[in-house]
Amino acid sequence: MTATSTAGLRMEVTHESGAARAGELTVRGRRVRTPAFLAVGTYGSVKGLPPDRLRQVGCEMILANACHLHDRPGEDVVAAMGGLHRFMNWDGPILTDSGGFQVFSMLDVAQLDDDGVTFRSPIDGRALRLGPIEAADIQLALDSDIAMVFDHCPPLPADRRLLETAVRRTTDWARRALEHHRATSRDGQALFAIVQGGLDDALRERSAAELTAMDFDGFAVGGLSVGESAEQLRAATRRYAPLLPGHRVRYLMGVGRPGDVLTAIAAGFDVFDCVLPTRNGRHGTLFTSEGTVHLRNRRFREARGAVEPGCTCEACTQWDVGVLRHLIMAGEPLGRMLCSIHNLHFLHTLVEEARDAIREDRFDAWFAASPHVR
Amino acid sequence: MTATSTAGLRMEVTHESGAARAGELTVRGRRVRTPAFLAVGTYGSVKGLPPDRLRQVGCEMILANACHLHDRPGEDVVAAMGGLHRFMNWDGPILTDSGGFQVFSMLDVAQLDDDGVTFRSPIDGRALRLGPIEAADIQLALDSDIAMVFDHCPPLPADRRLLETAVRRTTDWARRALEHHRATSRDGQALFAIVQGGLDDALRERSAAELTAMDFDGFAVGGLSVGESAEQLRAATRRYAPLLPGHRVRYLMGVGRPGDVLTAIAAGFDVFDCVLPTRNGRHGTLFTSEGTVHLRNRRFREARGAVEPGCTCEACTQWDVGVLRHLIMAGEPLGRMLCSIHNLHFLHTLVEEARDAIREDRFDAWFAASPHVR
Repeated sequence: MTATSTAGLRMEVTHESGAARAGELTVRGRRVRTPAFLAVGTYGSVKGLPPDRLRQVGCEMILANACHLHDRPGEDVVAAMGGLHRFMNWDGPILTDSGGFQVFSMLDVAQLDDDGVTFRSPIDGRALRLGPIEAADIQLALDSDIAMVFDHCPPLPADRRLLETAVRRTTDWARRALEHHRATSRDGQALFAIVQGGLDDALRERSAAELTAMDFDGFAVGGLSVGESAEQLRAATRRYAPLLPGHRVRYLMGVGRPGDVLTAIAAGFDVFDCVLPTRNGRHGTLFTSEGTVHLRNRRFREARGAVEPGCTCEACTQWDVGVLRHLIMAGEPLGRMLCSIHNLHFLHTLVEEARDAIREDRFDAWFAASPHVR
Repeated sequence: MTATSTAGLRMEVTHESGAARAGELTVRGRRVRTPAFLAVGTYGSVKGLPPDRLRQVGCEMILANACHLHDRPGEDVVAAMGGLHRFMNWDGPILTDSGGFQVFSMLDVAQLDDDGVTFRSPIDGRALRLGPIEAADIQLALDSDIAMVFDHCPPLPADRRLLETAVRRTTDWARRALEHHRATSRDGQALFAIVQGGLDDALRERSAAELTAMDFDGFAVGGLSVGESAEQLRAATRRYAPLLPGHRVRYLMGVGRPGDVLTAIAAGFDVFDCVLPTRNGRHGTLFTSEGTVHLRNRRFREARGAVEPGCTCEACTQWDVGVLRHLIMAGEPLGRMLCSIHNLHFLHTLVEEARDAIREDRFDAWFAASPHVR
C-alpha cells in the first residue's frame, strides 16, 4: 500500500504482520524506514551525540521542539542559519513538535484561551505566546520536514470536562492550523494532527473522527505518557491505533521504553519518539534485555565486558562496564555520551528486529517471546 | 641526538633551530612527535572527547592525574580494568601527573610534613594521603608510561623561605621516589623529576642541579602558571629551559595559551600540558589567530561560517559559528565538545607548524612573525 498526501508525503507500507506494519516514509526526498524511533533533539541537538554517532546507532530521523527553539535561539536565527537541517547538520528527515505537550506538562502556563497559550520562558521567565497559527509559523521558519499542529494536551489524570475542552480546542486549532499552513507552506512541509482525549475512549473516537475528516499528511496519538500507568499506556496504545487511517503515517508521541515501543509497533504505529534513551543514558541507566540497569550500583565497580552481552554498540564493544560506571560517577561527558549511545543503539536494534519480524510475517510470535513485553 | 634513559625512554632530537628542537619521544613502544602538547584527562577522560576525536584533533599523548584517579575510582579499579590504557581506550603514550600541583593549588590541605601531605577529597571530604612513595605506587598501579615525582608546588607569589622549603622537600621526595621506583617498577615505566623554586633564579638553579644529578628519565619545570603574570611566565620559561639537560625530555607543566606554548618551544621545551583548550572550549571561548573569542557575544548570534577562517577542524568545517553559539548558550554537550575540538585542533596545528619550522630551520623567523607572541 502506497499513499501520497496532499503535501507530497509518501507512506509506503510494504509488509504487514498482524496489526504491525513495516515500510518507508518519504518526505521532501528524505526517507526513513518504518517502524522508526525518533531521537529527540529538543534544542536542535540530541544531547551529547554528534551526527556521526547518531548514524552509527541507527538513527534515521530526529525530532526537535518548535516551542524550545522559538524560545532559544529563536526561529529567526535558525532561518538565518539556513534552516533546521543545516542548523543540526542532519540531512535525514526532521519532525518538529509544536510544543503542546511541553507547554501543558512542564512549563509555567500563565493564560490559556481558545486562541492559544501564554506561558513563561523556561530560560528567563519572559512571556511567550503559542497558538495554532504561531506554532505553524514557527515550524515553517524552522523548515522542518514534518510540522505538528499545536494541541491542548492536559496531564493525566484529568477530569472529563477538561478532556472534552482539550478535544474541542485541539480540533479547532487543527482546523485553523491546516488552513493557515496550506496558505503559507512551501517546499512540501507536511503537517500532522494530534488526537487527544486522555483515557476516555468516546473522546478519543470523537477527536480522531474530527481530525481524520481533515486532509492532514499524518496523524498522531498525543496526550499519553503524561502520568498514566504503564498498563494504562499499553492498553490505550492498542485501543487508539485503529482510530488512525491506515494509509497515513501513524505516530505515537512520547513513548520510548522498549516494551512500550514494541506494543506500539504491534498496534500498528509507524513512528515514536522519546527523550528516555538519552535522559536515562545521562544518568547511567541502561537498557538491557534483562530490564534497565543502574551503573551507579556498586556491583559494577570492577566489572569487565559489556553491560549487554553481544551488543554491538560503541560503549559495549570498546569500554568495560566498570569504566562506564566511573565516567558516570565522575560526571564525565564521555560517560553520558556512551550510555546514550548504548540506549539509542539498543532501541534502534530492537525496532530493526521488529521490522525484520514484520517483513517475514512472524511478528506476533516474536512479540510474544520478547522479554520486554512480559 | 638520541639518548635512551635507564628505564628505556628514548628521546631523539632530529632537528634544532635556535634553541627550539623537534624529534620523537618513545616510551614502552609508544611514540609521540615533539614538540608535543598533551591534552588533559584528569579523571581518565579528556572532557567530552571520545578517542576518535582526540586523534582527529592531532592529539598523540594524554595526561591523566594520579591524585584524582586515586580519589575516584581508585587505582585498584583502574588496575582491575587492565590499566590506564585500556581504561582510557587510548593506545598512545600516557603521562600521569603526581598531583603535587593540584594538592597545593586547588585542594584543601589538612597537613603538610616532610613525608607528604594529608588533604581532603574534593569528592567527599575524606582524608587522603600523598607523598613520594604513595604517588609512585599509585602511578605504578595505574600503569602509565611516564610517572611524575610528587613535588612540593607552592602557589605564587610565595616568600623565599617557603620556596626554599619546597625545593628542599622536592629534592628529598624525588630521591626517595626514584629509589622506590627503581626497586618496584616494571615494564619500563619512566619517572620524571620536577624542578621547583618559583621565580627565584638561584633556587631554580639549585633545584635543577640537585635533580639533574639523579638518574631520572626526564625533567619538568613545575610551579609555573600558578599565579604569576603572563610576562613573568614567559621570562621564566626562557630562563629555566637551559637548566634542564638537552639529552632528556624537557617538560613545561601547565602551559596551554598559544603564545605561552610557542614561547616554551622557542626556549627548547619538548612537551607541555594544560586544561585550557578544553576548559575554555566548554565555556565557548575559542582560540583564533586574532586572539580568544567569546561565543556568548551577541555579535555571533546569526554568524555564518567558521570562527577561524581556513581552520580544518570539525567545528569550523561542519558548523556555523551561530550554531556553535546557540549550542553553548543552551548548555548542549555537543557545543562544548565542538568548541573543545576547535581549541585542541588549533593548538595542535600551531605546534605542528612550529615543528615544521624547526625541521626547516626557520623557527626564529616564524616565531617572531607569529601573532600569538606579539
